[in-house]
Amino acid sequence: MRLSRYFLPVLKETPSEAQIVSHRLMLRAGMIKQAAAGIYSWLPLGFKVLRKLENIVHEEQTRAGHIAIQMPILQSADLWRESGRYDDYGQEMLRMQDRHGRDMLYTPTAEELVTDIFRGHVSSYKDLPLTLYQIQWKFRDEIRPRFGVMRGREFYMKDGYNFDLTKEDALHAYNRHLVSYLRTYERMGLQAIPMRADSGPIGGDNTHEFLVLADTGESEVFYDSDVVNLSLANVGNGLDSLNYDSHEDMQAIANFFTSTYARTDETHDPKIFESQVPEERRRVARGIEVGQIFYFGTKYSEAMGATVQGPDGKPVPVHMGSHGIGVSRLIGAIIEASHDDKGIIWPEGVTPFHCGIVNLKQGDEEADAACDKLYSALTALGLEPLYDDRKERAGGKFATMDLIGLPWRITVGPRGLKNGVVELTCRRTGESEELSPEAAVTKIAEIYEGIA
Amino acid sequence: MRLSRYFLPVLKETPSEAQIVSHRLMLRAGMIKQAAAGIYSWLPLGFKVLRKLENIVHEEQTRAGHIAIQMPILQSADLWRESGRYDDYGQEMLRMQDRHGRDMLYTPTAEELVTDIFRGHVSSYKDLPLTLYQIQWKFRDEIRPRFGVMRGREFYMKDGYNFDLTKEDALHAYNRHLVSYLRTYERMGLQAIPMRADSGPIGGDNTHEFLVLADTGESEVFYDSDVVNLSLANVGNGLDSLNYDSHEDMQAIANFFTSTYARTDETHDPKIFESQVPEERRRVARGIEVGQIFYFGTKYSEAMGATVQGPDGKPVPVHMGSHGIGVSRLIGAIIEASHDDKGIIWPEGVTPFHCGIVNLKQGDEEADAACDKLYSALTALGLEPLYDDRKERAGGKFATMDLIGLPWRITVGPRGLKNGVVELTCRRTGESEELSPEAAVTKIAEIYEGIA
Repeated sequence: MRLSRYFLPVLKETPSEAQIVSHRLMLRAGMIKQAAAGIYSWLPLGFKVLRKLENIVHEEQTRAGHIAIQMPILQSADLWRESGRYDDYGQEMLRMQDRHGRDMLYTPTAEELVTDIFRGHVSSYKDLPLTLYQIQWKFRDEIRPRFGVMRGREFYMKDGYNFDLTKEDALHAYNRHLVSYLRTYERMGLQAIPMRADSGPIGGDNTHEFLVLADTGESEVFYDSDVVNLSLANVGNGLDSLNYDSHEDMQAIANFFTSTYARTDETHDPKIFESQVPEERRRVARGIEVGQIFYFGTKYSEAMGATVQGPDGKPVPVHMGSHGIGVSRLIGAIIEASHDDKGIIWPEGVTPFHCGIVNLKQGDEEADAACDKLYSALTALGLEPLYDDRKERAGGKFATMDLIGLPWRITVGPRGLKNGVVELTCRRTGESEELSPEAAVTKIAEIYEGIA
Repeated sequence: MRLSRYFLPVLKETPSEAQIVSHRLMLRAGMIKQAAAGIYSWLPLGFKVLRKLENIVHEEQTRAGHIAIQMPILQSADLWRESGRYDDYGQEMLRMQDRHGRDMLYTPTAEELVTDIFRGHVSSYKDLPLTLYQIQWKFRDEIRPRFGVMRGREFYMKDGYNFDLTKEDALHAYNRHLVSYLRTYERMGLQAIPMRADSGPIGGDNTHEFLVLADTGESEVFYDSDVVNLSLANVGNGLDSLNYDSHEDMQAIANFFTSTYARTDETHDPKIFESQVPEERRRVARGIEVGQIFYFGTKYSEAMGATVQGPDGKPVPVHMGSHGIGVSRLIGAIIEASHDDKGIIWPEGVTPFHCGIVNLKQGDEEADAACDKLYSALTALGLEPLYDDRKERAGGKFATMDLIGLPWRITVGPRGLKNGVVELTCRRTGESEELSPEAAVTKIAEIYEGIA
């Protein structure tokens, strides 16, 4: 993309309404614009990142054997009356009536609707296991929306639902989700720690929240510092050999990640914390919730009559769980975890453009030609550069590139070109090296091999 | 995808509520399930097609230089009061109040919001031309939703908005949209004819609707039979050399497609029809509207103060147009245009899976191995086969494949394998040929070259 043809409305001033850094930087980098309280338009740069995250979520869910569907934004209140949640949900549910006076709502979650799909179409245990998921806009009418996309009212969320014959199978689905979520976050350059969370009125201890450590997090968390060293790279024979069908493998990975003490404040137990964790490893910090997995057994299947014929011919209510990733909120979390005082620093896996090209002297024949050539060479390799081809001063161009956070920048100027070199700069370290344009292209291609 | 692991709830009976063939086939093929009147869940097969269409629209809009954003589902009523449309819109607009009693609505279109984004961020003519678009769920509270996704209440739509300094530039944007839409439909295997349409209360004659001829269409259309022979293939030096920046080229293509008589009943003029079109070429038929382009000048920019500083330093209200493609409705239109009594026939550009693999004797060691090998070979080429690995009778497997309409099917059985052959069948023609598994893979790969 050539910047002269793009729509990148960066702001010079820091917007006064933004209290946390991710909100400030998303506004300043022209990623979002508030449309109403807690409701945002995604401008081109923001939408590109959102779409990248969406694709990563789809890829990892597909890899785990989960199947994508798309449920509607509006739901009928009737289904929610059947489960008993219509009255329970309170003011966070946005309700309305259509022109015929029928009660409708803007979906905050979809356990009822997906259970209705299931009971309408699945009748035999032979069709299990089954996990359906979607990525769709949701709405929760927060009383005080704040922190930009981190605590908005309208948000983009992946929600998945597993249907299994037995509790054991459903717990395997739970573990499968845990592993697929860890992979998802890792590809986004995020460390999200699964923490034992509160299961609320449903009971049981089969729920984990995934938290990204950040000072601006809404949750207080307690953990053994060893937990931050756990990585999928330490598991089995590497990521690509993960066998999502193996109950044993998934259980082993789940144990590996959930045996070390890590809890949110709702489930934190000071006695266990002190007895299990040596004092020097005890940590109290704040975290941003970016996902949650949940096994809730037959709560909805019994209430809504979602049964299958079991092997013995008798009807069995299915065991279910639901599992969510906050896709739009993740963008805020990534920025909270990866920025400096100049702006955003995108991890390579989610960056909106793979690299920036800065032309120090737009209009100079040689510099223009060199930039065009770099642009074509990168594009031909399937990479997407953002070429700042405006007639601006170098300082302004650098400031914009730093603000929007592309991980790599190629700087092209007449002086360097005389020596046959351009400059390649890493946004994260600030380190630069001079190399030939061809070598710069090769290096960028190597960096993104297996990512882009 | 292996069918044993997929969720493809095909129906044996024809659903009684479905009045037109696309609705019947989408229900029978397990593509959608009604969630409420005019509101559908997209099941896996339906969602896959929806996503393919969405990607084609994104690719063609990007090619035309238009920039993707994402605006929210819910909008504040205030913006619509500013343009004067809040009261005008009537009962098709779904309105609600949030917990603080603020008037909100489920967006039916986004002229106001995109104009608000524009006026908040663009102030100079130097930032023009600019075309922003999104693909987002919309809602129109139809009094009698029917025909499945063809006339639903919640629907998925691409809506684009151009901002230009002059009327001439805006008409170039209009032509650019016309050409990009023609390319989009062509890639979907559809012939959609641009027809002069009614511009409604706004006036002017700068609007065209794109219609797919079909007996079930909601609009009566009048045209010169020559118009169905017009094709992008006859234009210039081929599709890939289209220069969207050239006013002349775009105008020439627009003229080529819009000079032959083709009008909807609102603009049909019997006198012109009879004087311009020889009797043997006059056609009266029905059509499905799958898109519309519109130039409306400064209607919104003046009402909402969307001006830029012109070259002479004075403020100028921008010239705008809006342009829509009904993405979910297109699926109905494609099926109306491409089916037979056995089921759907997907054009290669939009098929949910590139080919089916039918194993005639599941459990037979050789047949299973041959199917696995075909599956791996196709997958390795980036193609997505649907392998019917269920223990079902061949007749049932064929019926399912015919119903869901994959354009190509490879049939594998012990008898053929003894002679080293499998059978490759074209869904459209019903013709089969025997060839080696390797040759079948090569042929499928050739068919999808440049498409998949």
